[in-house]
Amino acid sequence: MKENDDRKLAEAFIARDRFAREMGIQLVAVSAGRATARLEITEAHHNGLGMTQGGAVFTLADLAFAAASNSHGTVAVAINASISFLKATAGGVLTAEAEEITANPKLSTYTVRVTDDTGEVVAIFQGMAYRKKKPLVPE
Amino acid sequence: MKENDDRKLAEAFIARDRFAREMGIQLVAVSAGRATARLEITEAHHNGLGMTQGGAVFTLADLAFAAASNSHGTVAVAINASISFLKATAGGVLTAEAEEITANPKLSTYTVRVTDDTGEVVAIFQGMAYRKKKPLVPE
Amino acid sequence: MKENDDRKLAEAFIARDRFAREMGIQLVAVSAGRATARLEITEAHHNGLGMTQGGAVFTLADLAFAAASNSHGTVAVAINASISFLKATAGGVLTAEAEEITANPKLSTYTVRVTDDTGEVVAIFQGMAYRKKKPLVPE
Amino acid sequence: MKENDDRKLAEAFIARDRFAREMGIQLVAVSAGRATARLEITEAHHNGLGMTQGGAVFTLADLAFAAASNSHGTVAVAINASISFLKATAGGVLTAEAEEITANPKLSTYTVRVTDDTGEVVAIFQGMAYRKKKPLVPE
Repeated sequence: MKENDDRKLAEAFIARDRFAREMGIQLVAVSAGRATARLEITEAHHNGLGMTQGGAVFTLADLAFAAASNSHGTVAVAINASISFLKATAGGVLTAEAEEITANPKLSTYTVRVTDDTGEVVAIFQGMAYRKKKPLVPE
Repeated sequence: MKENDDRKLAEAFIARDRFAREMGIQLVAVSAGRATARLEITEAHHNGLGMTQGGAVFTLADLAFAAASNSHGTVAVAINASISFLKATAGGVLTAEAEEITANPKLSTYTVRVTDDTGEVVAIFQGMAYRKKKPLVPE
Repeated sequence: MKENDDRKLAEAFIARDRFAREMGIQLVAVSAGRATARLEITEAHHNGLGMTQGGAVFTLADLAFAAASNSHGTVAVAINASISFLKATAGGVLTAEAEEITANPKLSTYTVRVTDDTGEVVAIFQGMAYRKKKPLVPE
Repeated sequence: MKENDDRKLAEAFIARDRFAREMGIQLVAVSAGRATARLEITEAHHNGLGMTQGGAVFTLADLAFAAASNSHGTVAVAINASISFLKATAGGVLTAEAEEITANPKLSTYTVRVTDDTGEVVAIFQGMAYRKKKPLVPE
């Protein structure tokens, strides 16, 4: 039951993320140490070259990372992230899948793979979170 | 004169960046290999904890990086970025200053420091760009 | 047959890596886009705290990355790497497994997982290589 | 006086780093939040292409980072590092200069610039350390 409650807390936490929500990012799934998020790319996400802005791709990956790292019932905050941009996109749906690599009581790390509609990797993201003792709470 | 023209091309390029513009990011200054950008944090930039979302901080740093890496008259695209988040913020104005560390004909690297109103470092960002031969053009 | 030849070229290339060899790193396996390397930790790999030095862990991961990125018959050089250190070790055998995430004609990226004897993750490494057109050649 | 004592503790800590010492790395200077280290490149540091191995460059940068992050009298351990390789070298002396960007009671970050004899940047390194409460002690 605890895992189920933790998942709901993580979902509620992400639902309060106004920046991600206004960008159009949707949380698709959360389970212990894992999360999937999705973004339909529109012209509102474009940079000066007419391609998806790196910040939009990062935010999508970061949201999946935040959901995964907050999936254990306590607050985790990002302290470091590294992203490699592998393929430019201008439309379609991007999907970010975060997977926990390891978690100790203080630190946890995640790899997030961002793919496009064809399954090709658009970006790869590695994030590290600092885990607080503070429980995640419903608003 | 070329440097002056390159600066104007970079400014025009950034002005076309719809994602950054709609978020409220402003390009403050560009010169050869350097750029400064600014973002006034509002609740629209908040995450589920009521703090500035990591994606908003990243996008601000990335925009300064994009302006600096596109300041030499040719198109440069981000291939890698690493960011460390050092201080949480919830309001005020964030300033990102990008400095070119090195540039060869194919690759260039930048360090971006993001500071708050008090001058404290909020994030430090390291970015690498791949330089195309294609000239930056006015729209 | 080409894949077999490429594997042999990568093995010969790594065999010429004097720095890795003198440290005691062994290449265990190479195939297209993948490689495994191993290091038995001794006091010669220790830092001032008596733990495995971060540079030794990095070099092990980097060697697996180099073998994997040079497994396609042409020279690839590392341009960026990010490593997160998750568990301190002082002895035993460390194993690094590199997996190609994506490869286009110019850039390729790899995730390397370093584990200890118990299978626990010691470090996670993300590397990006620049692919030259130059073929790998036997010495 | 405390700063002077802290510097001596950091120097003694680095002097016990057997891996760095056997590679030939020398600590040149340490002060609060800063350190400089040096490595004379020989064939023993070469990779399979006859160039300085990325692991040797990383270890040099990491040593300067370790000295700088342990310059405040307490133990700090590396948790994350990102390195961009900008110029290949095969000989000469490499110098790594670490500068503290920020330090709070738990985390601190550093930028390390590695240059060659001509002053050109060979690599740029960004490191994050976790600061323990444990004091650095003479052996």
